[in-house]
Amino acid sequence: MSPLPSDPDTVPVEAQRHCLSRRELFGVAGVTAAVVGAASAGALAGRASAAATATGGLDEPVPFRGERQAGIITPAQDRVHFCAFDMTTDSRADVVAMLKEWTGMAERMTAGHEAVHDGAVGLNPYAPPSDTGEALGLAAAQLTLTIGFGPGFFVKDGKDRFGIARQKPMLLTDLPKFPNETLDPARCGGDIVVQACANDPQVAVHAIRNLARVGFGTVAVRYSQLGFGRTSSTTREQTTPRNLFGFEDGTNNIKAEDTGTLDDQVWVAKGDGPDWMTGGTYLVSRRIRMRIEAWDRTTLLEQERVIGRQKGSGAPNGLIDANAHVRLASHQHQNGIRILRRGYNFTDGSDGFGHLDAGLFFIAFMRNPRTQFIPMQSELARHDALNEYITHTSSGIFACPPGLRDGEFWGSTLFG
Amino acid sequence: MSPLPSDPDTVPVEAQRHCLSRRELFGVAGVTAAVVGAASAGALAGRASAAATATGGLDEPVPFRGERQAGIITPAQDRVHFCAFDMTTDSRADVVAMLKEWTGMAERMTAGHEAVHDGAVGLNPYAPPSDTGEALGLAAAQLTLTIGFGPGFFVKDGKDRFGIARQKPMLLTDLPKFPNETLDPARCGGDIVVQACANDPQVAVHAIRNLARVGFGTVAVRYSQLGFGRTSSTTREQTTPRNLFGFEDGTNNIKAEDTGTLDDQVWVAKGDGPDWMTGGTYLVSRRIRMRIEAWDRTTLLEQERVIGRQKGSGAPNGLIDANAHVRLASHQHQNGIRILRRGYNFTDGSDGFGHLDAGLFFIAFMRNPRTQFIPMQSELARHDALNEYITHTSSGIFACPPGLRDGEFWGSTLFG
Repeated sequence: MSPLPSDPDTVPVEAQRHCLSRRELFGVAGVTAAVVGAASAGALAGRASAAATATGGLDEPVPFRGERQAGIITPAQDRVHFCAFDMTTDSRADVVAMLKEWTGMAERMTAGHEAVHDGAVGLNPYAPPSDTGEALGLAAAQLTLTIGFGPGFFVKDGKDRFGIARQKPMLLTDLPKFPNETLDPARCGGDIVVQACANDPQVAVHAIRNLARVGFGTVAVRYSQLGFGRTSSTTREQTTPRNLFGFEDGTNNIKAEDTGTLDDQVWVAKGDGPDWMTGGTYLVSRRIRMRIEAWDRTTLLEQERVIGRQKGSGAPNGLIDANAHVRLASHQHQNGIRILRRGYNFTDGSDGFGHLDAGLFFIAFMRNPRTQFIPMQSELARHDALNEYITHTSSGIFACPPGLRDGEFWGSTLFG
Repeated sequence: MSPLPSDPDTVPVEAQRHCLSRRELFGVAGVTAAVVGAASAGALAGRASAAATATGGLDEPVPFRGERQAGIITPAQDRVHFCAFDMTTDSRADVVAMLKEWTGMAERMTAGHEAVHDGAVGLNPYAPPSDTGEALGLAAAQLTLTIGFGPGFFVKDGKDRFGIARQKPMLLTDLPKFPNETLDPARCGGDIVVQACANDPQVAVHAIRNLARVGFGTVAVRYSQLGFGRTSSTTREQTTPRNLFGFEDGTNNIKAEDTGTLDDQVWVAKGDGPDWMTGGTYLVSRRIRMRIEAWDRTTLLEQERVIGRQKGSGAPNGLIDANAHVRLASHQHQNGIRILRRGYNFTDGSDGFGHLDAGLFFIAFMRNPRTQFIPMQSELARHDALNEYITHTSSGIFACPPGLRDGEFWGSTLFG
């Protein structure tokens, strides 16, 4: 990646006025080669950010450090690359070294730079480039990288591999078996998760790939999932998008502005668990395969009955069915339970039986999975009218620490 | 989908100046519900198109009818959903009826409308909606739908199912076996292909899904592939993007402006084959899995030697290796052969062995596969230094007719 040209005067008026992609902007301004070849990305960072703001924010960097990890209440970006890793080492030192290296790379990449200074073009032609290069010339695209630790990171097969078993949160245990799920074990769990969200999928894929690359020997990719369209809004300014059932989703999501609700329902409070999780949150992921072909053959009335909303306007039905999805999932029905949803639509080709392998990759953040997701999903899995059209095919749970202060690295409070 | 608000005065200055997504634009303008609920998409079509132009073109519709099919020399959009179908009927009448229905839907969807007038919200609540709805509120996003017919559309297992065996072009035969391929039969071939390209993946997925839906009983999805980043430019204005090896690709592609070369190398001339193909072209697809983890561990020198280019600048190496990819693929080396490339990067999760299942979904258009792709690929498959890092996992060949004149439908000249 490279910064935008620093001087607004070098950007043609046409490019400022119109909605050009960053690629086109570079093309028009003719600066790609010069920036890539000669300029130090670091030196131009501040100006890059300012320039990006001027084009509307979707290309802009999101701050990496802060009280919370980015990628949770950050306005939901349009694409995700979600990647779960298995640890392939028993060495605590190797894990710590990798997490330090990842932190440095993540901070650079989220700022719109290569993973390592001059990484893609290399200072040493006799060594592998330290950045894979496919994001050269692309903007930061609001990339966020959010890390979480799975149960197996602390204890695997009863073994305390890294001397952190005592730091394992009580709430971080594999989810129970629910009705209406056909889980693929290869797509479940994971010792570490990194959620990469961005408005340009190539930027998200590049980030995960470079983390996986330097993690070789310490971690291996267990599974990864691309999502192409956000299904939730996480700020009041964002509109409510549609899922692959064609309905608006996430209308009643917790928003970044609801600070009281976030404290109640999303952020782990002091005393909730181990100190390192204070200010953090739990991530639950579920790959929800939608039987879209069956859905597409049902009547509009049935679809609206099952969901509990009008398809066109998104407004709630006048008379909502007892088992309608929005009714069962509502906090009014769920004893006040709410979660912060941040899922994505996916289509993974076809399933070999003439159907699209498509659905919703559900991602949610919450303060306490045991009192929030588990009862909520138990109720939905038993009664939701939508169950006829969906099945859950993967499941994951991860403890996401709070944001990093200066000098900290991912996991530093855990290993410190 | 819905048109933009017709009156520019209703769009806040903020939205006009900044690069908002169409979703946000709707949110700001607050018109989604009104447009979806009340307005006829058709009535506002002209204004929608004009408004889209004003935001820079990436949301704009591409004309569906014309001398050529759109999606070939159209400026390469950023995303693809490529879908191959098998015929599941022996009825010529069913095939013709489906192609007529598809044409009407394709014309509407590429204009930024629902697949059927008022399709998503339905005029009859007791019937399934005739549009699946997930693209309501999204722009046309330069959607193009390009159709091609595979060998099996004409003759399958020696059988002339639809009475068109005599219309089968001589050049439309399955590609020969090449070295360095490990083809998955389930991902090869197909009787019909539809290439959906758009700048919003949800728009491309929506289009394929709705065609597959109404095709039920006549066709079934054989395989489909999502691509997230274009790897070629097809006009001189487009910049050259990077593939997942981190290199610029498609620098020397045939461009829309090269009309002489297009006539020589891409468009089928009168007398080349059956009349219905005059002005058409052949599409060859190859899913090329990249061994990106192995690649990422090679030195910059080796990478640049294998490709034959500088990674940073994209400039050719001073001394190009005899087997460098760009040398072997060049038309200077290939006896003047050129093809129009229009491929996409893909990442389909992981392969179960700790590696990302990623690569390049190669799509190319040419006048004669027998004298263009086959010799070109035979040479590359034997000598290309890149072969150590790639393997071809799927293959397809399709005959794409010319564009439609008013009153014509997909295949009308073939069945007429």
